[in-house]
Amino acid sequence: MIIKILTLFPEAFASINHSIIGRAIASRLLSVEVINIRDYSTDKHRRADDDPYGGGAGMVMTAQPIISCVRANADGLPEGGRRVCMSPRGSVFNQRKAEELAGLPWIMLICGHYEGIDQRAIDLVVDEELSIGDYVLTGGEPAVLVVMDAVARLLPGVLGNAESASDESFGASGLLEYPQYTHPRVVMGLAVPDVLLSGDHAKINAWRREQALRITRRNRPDLL
Amino acid sequence: MIIKILTLFPEAFASINHSIIGRAIASRLLSVEVINIRDYSTDKHRRADDDPYGGGAGMVMTAQPIISCVRANADGLPEGGRRVCMSPRGSVFNQRKAEELAGLPWIMLICGHYEGIDQRAIDLVVDEELSIGDYVLTGGEPAVLVVMDAVARLLPGVLGNAESASDESFGASGLLEYPQYTHPRVVMGLAVPDVLLSGDHAKINAWRREQALRITRRNRPDLL
Repeated sequence: MIIKILTLFPEAFASINHSIIGRAIASRLLSVEVINIRDYSTDKHRRADDDPYGGGAGMVMTAQPIISCVRANADGLPEGGRRVCMSPRGSVFNQRKAEELAGLPWIMLICGHYEGIDQRAIDLVVDEELSIGDYVLTGGEPAVLVVMDAVARLLPGVLGNAESASDESFGASGLLEYPQYTHPRVVMGLAVPDVLLSGDHAKINAWRREQALRITRRNRPDLL
Repeated sequence: MIIKILTLFPEAFASINHSIIGRAIASRLLSVEVINIRDYSTDKHRRADDDPYGGGAGMVMTAQPIISCVRANADGLPEGGRRVCMSPRGSVFNQRKAEELAGLPWIMLICGHYEGIDQRAIDLVVDEELSIGDYVLTGGEPAVLVVMDAVARLLPGVLGNAESASDESFGASGLLEYPQYTHPRVVMGLAVPDVLLSGDHAKINAWRREQALRITRRNRPDLL
């Protein structure tokens, strides 16, 4: 899979070679390119933002650099990819959407900044606006790191044994994950629940399901 | 404000000095410390994970290094902070929660990894589990970058003029933000809506509210 990141702040992606993304890149399961939108500005001062029409605080990213950047970098890509813009106005990014994106040959992830992007760039070169949650960020960069992580771990061969992709929250059960326990048996007076030491897999599964239900009911009744 | 990040992968935070976080740190509005949980492991090989009790794929972070790390790093902090663990099982992080955290003297952000954290560490040293959205990440690190960005921009003095903290999605109106336009007036045949050039602020505000409603209805009817 190919991921192209379009941003005014390429330095925000300095850490990707250390994460699971870095491992996926090293094993050639993923190719990531970080592109500076400002390099495509035809303004003599390479400006990429300006005052909003109609007034209001803050700056708006101009359409031209984004349109030129998307078009130049879409050149030569196969059919069937998607140009995504991260925005609090977008539809909700969730596990189903991560699975959908992981099945595409490429995605372009465009980072908005300041008060947003000139709407005409969105109308002309964006297929989908996505929001990772109901909070405001200074820009799309942290959101892109989230989307890349959620998508990359679903690519076949990316996860090692330590990080199974099964039995997760938001998986087939639709419930949040049950509590986990590991060695030792007692930590500061708190013991591992007996059932987990029983070796009875039917009982263990029943207990885990009951716990998953309890946690979902407490933290996220909206999922039930 | 003080933010302490507890992680097995400190290198995931290599980029924070370049972002708004970096600016907030430089202006002493924020202090960020990245702490390696593994440094607190009493295991002779500095292990910080082990097999889950009761079976199942993947590894679980052991309780001891986390408990020791949280306790050592809470030492000397004032009253009223919060120990937060990022987890898909947590309650939902949103703009209201960002505002709540931005009002605290300090937050500790603990990154889970692999299949999660031994439940006893959560029971003993975590005040709150938070989820940034309904998707699975390889670890809490990208989630912490999101929470830090959302919180830091709310600290007084952090945002510059280009990045006003008002009029945003999820703000007072409860609606997603209206479309933005900037120069030039026509981009590839698409003109700025006339109303934004009218200079009539009542009309502009009415148009923006109508657009905000339209976008919210289309992308996020659940917010209405």
